[in-house]
Amino acid sequence: MIDLHLIGIGTGNPDHLTRAAIVAMNAADLILLPRKGDAKSDLIDLRRGICAEVLTGATRVVEFDLPERDTTAPYLRAVDQWHDAIAVVWSIQIAQHLPNGGRLALLVWGDPSLYDSTLRIADRLRTDGMAMTVTVEPGITSLQALTAAHAIPLNTVGAPVLVTTGRRLRAWGWPADIGTIAVMLDGDCAFQTLDAAGVSIWWGAYLGMKDQMLIAGPLTVVAKRIVQTRADLREQHGWIMDIYLLRRDTSRRSDNSG
Amino acid sequence: MIDLHLIGIGTGNPDHLTRAAIVAMNAADLILLPRKGDAKSDLIDLRRGICAEVLTGATRVVEFDLPERDTTAPYLRAVDQWHDAIAVVWSIQIAQHLPNGGRLALLVWGDPSLYDSTLRIADRLRTDGMAMTVTVEPGITSLQALTAAHAIPLNTVGAPVLVTTGRRLRAWGWPADIGTIAVMLDGDCAFQTLDAAGVSIWWGAYLGMKDQMLIAGPLTVVAKRIVQTRADLREQHGWIMDIYLLRRDTSRRSDNSG
Ligand SMILES: C[S@@+](CC[C@H](N)C(=O)[O-])C[C@H]1O[C@@H](n2cnc3c(N)ncnc32)[C@H](O)[C@@H]1O
Ligand SMILES: C[S@@+](CC[C@H](N)C(=O)[O-])C[C@H]1O[C@@H](n2cnc3c(N)ncnc32)[C@H](O)[C@@H]1O
Repeated sequence: MIDLHLIGIGTGNPDHLTRAAIVAMNAADLILLPRKGDAKSDLIDLRRGICAEVLTGATRVVEFDLPERDTTAPYLRAVDQWHDAIAVVWSIQIAQHLPNGGRLALLVWGDPSLYDSTLRIADRLRTDGMAMTVTVEPGITSLQALTAAHAIPLNTVGAPVLVTTGRRLRAWGWPADIGTIAVMLDGDCAFQTLDAAGVSIWWGAYLGMKDQMLIAGPLTVVAKRIVQTRADLREQHGWIMDIYLLRRDTSRRSDNSG
Repeated sequence: MIDLHLIGIGTGNPDHLTRAAIVAMNAADLILLPRKGDAKSDLIDLRRGICAEVLTGATRVVEFDLPERDTTAPYLRAVDQWHDAIAVVWSIQIAQHLPNGGRLALLVWGDPSLYDSTLRIADRLRTDGMAMTVTVEPGITSLQALTAAHAIPLNTVGAPVLVTTGRRLRAWGWPADIGTIAVMLDGDCAFQTLDAAGVSIWWGAYLGMKDQMLIAGPLTVVAKRIVQTRADLREQHGWIMDIYLLRRDTSRRSDNSG
């Protein structure tokens, strides 16, 4: 029997670890740390650093290579195949390092619920017949790191918020009656495709890390600066993770209709 | 000068506190704890317990009574007036307990960004001329406590999520093209107003607390049980806080159109 603990570790700031996350890491027999190729090696360093800092007991830490996603295939199919491949790699690691079962922990970026596939991959292993319990420790998300860094609320009073991806924002535009949109997984600054009039943006990259960068203002004023800054930073670091919040002035109008 | 720190403390489980939250609490000169009337006294006890557990230094803890919201006036106007009244009460407390300025901390339920008015009230004080910096420490939200307790992802692969209130869900129904809705601040089980066919619900009350209660399943099957359980628990405790996630099967269909 495998007791799998998916532990949210926040998005870069080790002080965003919860006490429960630290306890769960120390209670694990084994922590598996995925290596994702060269460009994002800062992220594996961060995970290594967290382990070095908080582990006090006999927990073993083992690194393994994550397969890469096929970026040429259609998105959902590519993701599906990628998850299958990761499930295989996990089961190999489990067979090798916990042959008699035990407590396995995976450190999940941010919170395990938000645009993360770890829960889905665990489901595959259970479907394939592995005896496994799954426990989740929540972690601070990049969206919370963004709103905290800018010291802003996510929602306006009593109003809804749409959390979406760059791909979706580009494909669907801004849905009627929604005043606030949080955008993640955007490789392409999809905000450029919107009518910028009356829209404010709060943007953040490398949130919680030493290179954290924030830009905020009316979209008409700061959009170009964000696009340029993002390109420069990406060039400089070899990778970037960024997220943003968009708010437009219709929220009050919509409030009255609701 | 007041250095105000808004510290997210999670929604009931003291182990959801982050290390940054604990450091910020101890670095404060003063922590103000609001009392909200009798019904929710469990919540002030929880905050007192957290202070007792994590404070190690000279931080003073002062309790004060929060004004009540006018529940007869129209919602947005009532909220607005309530925030004004709270801002006045804060400034009285600050004048009394930090007359020469200093570091003030407020413990915010969950995360300060999510359906919480503390940031807006701080803005009022600054608008009124108080010299104040505002720093936010993120905390685990009730939404993360919900998905962690059920061990489920918030979103389906690459798909958006709407975070909304019971009031809005009731008024607007289920927006087209959205597969997942998270509902907070629902005093009335607004899911009863939806077409339940093909919808699953994950519901949780008192998340992170000793009385945590979870129900999940197809909405057609579990809706009545949730309504009844909620009424019973509310009766028994004198108050309830609950939150739920709704997912319907159209997400795949929408994915292909996106
Ligand atoms: C695969 S998702 C994982 C999200 C993660 N589970 C969370 O809770 O934040 C990756 C996306 O999260 C956002 N993100 C993650 N970490 C970030 C950081 N430190 N700074 C800015 N954005 C970040 C970016 O939008 C990125 O494309
Ligand atoms: C005023 S909002 C505050 C939300 C908070 N800032 C957060 O991050 O979760 C209160 C709503 O949050 C949800 N909530 C807060 N704590 C909860 C808990 N322990 N269990 C279930 N729902 C909770 C309920 O929907 C409640 O109506």
